[in-house]
Amino acid sequence: MANELTGDKPAAPINFCIRSMNNPPIFLGLDFGTESVRALLVDGRGRELASSVCGYEHGQITRALPGSSRRLPPHYALQHPLDWIESSASAVKEALKKARCSKERILGIGVDFTSCTMLPVTSDGTPLCLLPKFRNEPLAWPKLWKHHGAEEQARRLTAIARERGEGWLSRYGGTIGLEWFFPKMLETLECAPKVFERAEIWLEAGDWFVWQLVGGLASDLPRSTCQAGYKALWDRRDGFPNREYFSAVHPDLAEAVETKLPGRFLAPGERAGGLSPDMAAKFGLKPDVAVSAAIIDAHAGVPGAGAAEAGTLVMVLGTSSCHMLNAVEARPVPGVAGIVQDGIVPGFVGYETGQAAVGDAFDWVRRLCGEADFERLTEMASEVPVGAEGVLCRDWLNGCRTPLMDGSLTGAFTGLTLRHGPAHIYRAALEASGFGLKWIVELLREHGVAANRFVATGGLAHQNPLLMQIYADILGAPISIPASRQGPALGAAILGALAAGERLTGFSSIGQVIRAMASGRKTTRMVRPKLSNGKIYDQVYMRYRALASAA
Amino acid sequence: MANELTGDKPAAPINFCIRSMNNPPIFLGLDFGTESVRALLVDGRGRELASSVCGYEHGQITRALPGSSRRLPPHYALQHPLDWIESSASAVKEALKKARCSKERILGIGVDFTSCTMLPVTSDGTPLCLLPKFRNEPLAWPKLWKHHGAEEQARRLTAIARERGEGWLSRYGGTIGLEWFFPKMLETLECAPKVFERAEIWLEAGDWFVWQLVGGLASDLPRSTCQAGYKALWDRRDGFPNREYFSAVHPDLAEAVETKLPGRFLAPGERAGGLSPDMAAKFGLKPDVAVSAAIIDAHAGVPGAGAAEAGTLVMVLGTSSCHMLNAVEARPVPGVAGIVQDGIVPGFVGYETGQAAVGDAFDWVRRLCGEADFERLTEMASEVPVGAEGVLCRDWLNGCRTPLMDGSLTGAFTGLTLRHGPAHIYRAALEASGFGLKWIVELLREHGVAANRFVATGGLAHQNPLLMQIYADILGAPISIPASRQGPALGAAILGALAAGERLTGFSSIGQVIRAMASGRKTTRMVRPKLSNGKIYDQVYMRYRALASAA
Repeated sequence: MANELTGDKPAAPINFCIRSMNNPPIFLGLDFGTESVRALLVDGRGRELASSVCGYEHGQITRALPGSSRRLPPHYALQHPLDWIESSASAVKEALKKARCSKERILGIGVDFTSCTMLPVTSDGTPLCLLPKFRNEPLAWPKLWKHHGAEEQARRLTAIARERGEGWLSRYGGTIGLEWFFPKMLETLECAPKVFERAEIWLEAGDWFVWQLVGGLASDLPRSTCQAGYKALWDRRDGFPNREYFSAVHPDLAEAVETKLPGRFLAPGERAGGLSPDMAAKFGLKPDVAVSAAIIDAHAGVPGAGAAEAGTLVMVLGTSSCHMLNAVEARPVPGVAGIVQDGIVPGFVGYETGQAAVGDAFDWVRRLCGEADFERLTEMASEVPVGAEGVLCRDWLNGCRTPLMDGSLTGAFTGLTLRHGPAHIYRAALEASGFGLKWIVELLREHGVAANRFVATGGLAHQNPLLMQIYADILGAPISIPASRQGPALGAAILGALAAGERLTGFSSIGQVIRAMASGRKTTRMVRPKLSNGKIYDQVYMRYRALASAA
Repeated sequence: MANELTGDKPAAPINFCIRSMNNPPIFLGLDFGTESVRALLVDGRGRELASSVCGYEHGQITRALPGSSRRLPPHYALQHPLDWIESSASAVKEALKKARCSKERILGIGVDFTSCTMLPVTSDGTPLCLLPKFRNEPLAWPKLWKHHGAEEQARRLTAIARERGEGWLSRYGGTIGLEWFFPKMLETLECAPKVFERAEIWLEAGDWFVWQLVGGLASDLPRSTCQAGYKALWDRRDGFPNREYFSAVHPDLAEAVETKLPGRFLAPGERAGGLSPDMAAKFGLKPDVAVSAAIIDAHAGVPGAGAAEAGTLVMVLGTSSCHMLNAVEARPVPGVAGIVQDGIVPGFVGYETGQAAVGDAFDWVRRLCGEADFERLTEMASEVPVGAEGVLCRDWLNGCRTPLMDGSLTGAFTGLTLRHGPAHIYRAALEASGFGLKWIVELLREHGVAANRFVATGGLAHQNPLLMQIYADILGAPISIPASRQGPALGAAILGALAAGERLTGFSSIGQVIRAMASGRKTTRMVRPKLSNGKIYDQVYMRYRALASAA
């Protein structure tokens, strides 16, 4: 029988050792989101044994630093690094308790993380914000992916790269995002020079967390090729952009890129090291369990959805959304946020595209309308005809990622009359999200990148059937929704299994792990498009594009 | 001492008879709004004795006709004619009870009414909707001013007038509004021909009500020059547009204009007749009390605010707003809804401009945000800086009246980000309303019509100090707010006093009545502009105009 999620060929009968075991090995996936971390325990046959979520004590730090009442600038979004350790330890212990399994069976750990969430640390890995001297300095704290303080810096980094004709810029759609690594680094250099000076190492939060798990010297710290490739302009062949480029931006930045980014570059699924005894004790796990290099949370959704083949767009739908696609060849597509060889899974070119506010935008509408939850809004919006009776939304409440790559762009609602109400506003926001998706798919196809199958994962894929129907209607194509609600966490666990190594698991490739562990057809739901709706949406889509052009 | 509201000269010492009376005569103002009617008793010295409001039993009929469950088309807004009689009778009796005055002292009645609210009746004045045959026919019912079923008809009437180069069109800014008399008449002709055929008389609701008060033959029915001039293309010199024009639109319309619009044309303040014995009994008043010809509710606010001189813009701020101005000369101003000689008070050219959704738009935001009242929204919006932190509104939730004269235009909010919330949306709606007002003032001045003093009346002027401050800041000019919250009702009473005649009152001109009865400086509040805010608003206004151009 054909396997729905890994391609057309039946799964090859590999991994006899795991498939025949009564108690196959277990893998831990740690999925670090914006508000909380999830710990998932899944065995080598893909059975989910337990899962636990733990919120971060300090959540998103957007109003004031912990212990301070001084108001942060409006574009700031920071996090507390100890939240990541404490919350994940709690989640793991809770999951172990639920699963009632022996810690001896856990053979691999995978970590996915929001990105670019990044921080400055000392040479022993201590976050600067934990030093008394810097605790009241906002820019010494980890900047969350959605921190938008580096708008001007991103613009300058892009302008200089364009002026110099830097070839690598085409891999990023011609624009450096304001949420990326070097704009955030440059922001600190220019706005908090003392923090920049004191920083000995700059790194992604996912890399910092993996480094905390496995220990070791700064010169060996495991950096993820996924995070470096998509967020820090890094390439397996060329490394970071050259010194001349950074010098043209700021001499101190050039110096820092050479001296303050130590470490080894490892692909997701490569072994970063073994769990340190301290951390093993803290998490209730065995020391020396294999830990994979980190992966961006959204990207973990691709193996998590069992989709490794070319041409399948995996949509990870959460507060923002990330649409990922593997292809055989690298073709430049303007406005695509990252085109990285081996960026998602080995052997393919990973394309990353995204929409900056999806669930966040819907939640914004919910809060605007004073609703406690989505129940009533969804019920009313389902009654509103396709096209929201003329209300049109430009869904850029957090800027536009693909294709315009401009975090300073803003959202809009038009076509409003006294007859409209919350239901129209909400429906228009859902439809706008679908139009943004269609724009991305058209863009890929126009540049010769196949996108012929659609898989939706992430919270919204399960919680919002109205949204899924709107997406299918607008795309004019069915959407598969894997049953597992823990795509990225499952993807992380799959990478943990790969990191554990063939000797322990029998898995010698990511394809093998995915076939063994990712869910198949019987647990996948299909949302089929309604063609009559699609015809109406084609008209409204033209108006959406016109509204986008008017911004 | 200079009188704030009637000009720079001290009030002339006229009307000794009234000023020296212990029990001066009393006048009744009846102010028919969209949801309710107000009865105001005020004496010849301008002292308000009592006031009472009574809601219409059927309110606005927008969903289904009384006794029917059949859903009305979305653009429909109708009323029940008996509501006007019953509600006003209740309000008058209640006011008389409160005032504890002898009905003998009441010498004049003035009536203001929403417009163009109009209806078809038989030759004895019976509304067609009260005939059993027509009670289930929506277009046999009075159409409320905001009924928007005649969009296509308005467009056609305008297009043909332009083609034929009709000179009267320039008095209306070059466009016939979809809420006006002839579009509404033509709508019925085309959409309910049987109703049109049965109708023997078409008239404004205000004229119908005055006719009901004074009785008499159809050939003598008192039609208001204000309503005819502003809403039915009528002119004191030329009458209605000529037969050729109406024939070019529809021969049956031309026929109806000649045969179905009988009556005498009377200016507001002219005596329509004496109260009939039946009506006197119903209202608890003396028979034969003088009744003035009707005036449009908004226009009644001009004498009500004590402003009769040229160059003072009187803003009547309610669900929609109407800005009126007297000038010495008639100059065509594109997009001004009506320029009528003696249209507001005798001796001046009345200019009427307006914004189609003001209080209605704010209430729309309130409902959208799930707030029970405006308290919390106002408090939060006051904290939001000038310019609503980038959120911009196009306030056309009910179309645009002045200057674009297009009821099909729609509203918008732009500049939205996740940081914004209800407070920004609400503040942006308030600011947009101020920008729309500034646009109107600029337009008048550009065409040589002075607008140098601003008086605000109507519910919002008193209930929304934040709005008044925003208006003053945006205009860069102080705004006077007369203490009386019953501007139109007071204006109606003033017209009732004029209709009573010099023999009974000693008043020989509208200016005399206003000086005697409208409130002076001591009861007027002044809102002064903050210049620093004005500078910011000047920038935001440019963006508002750009957003208006983009619609």
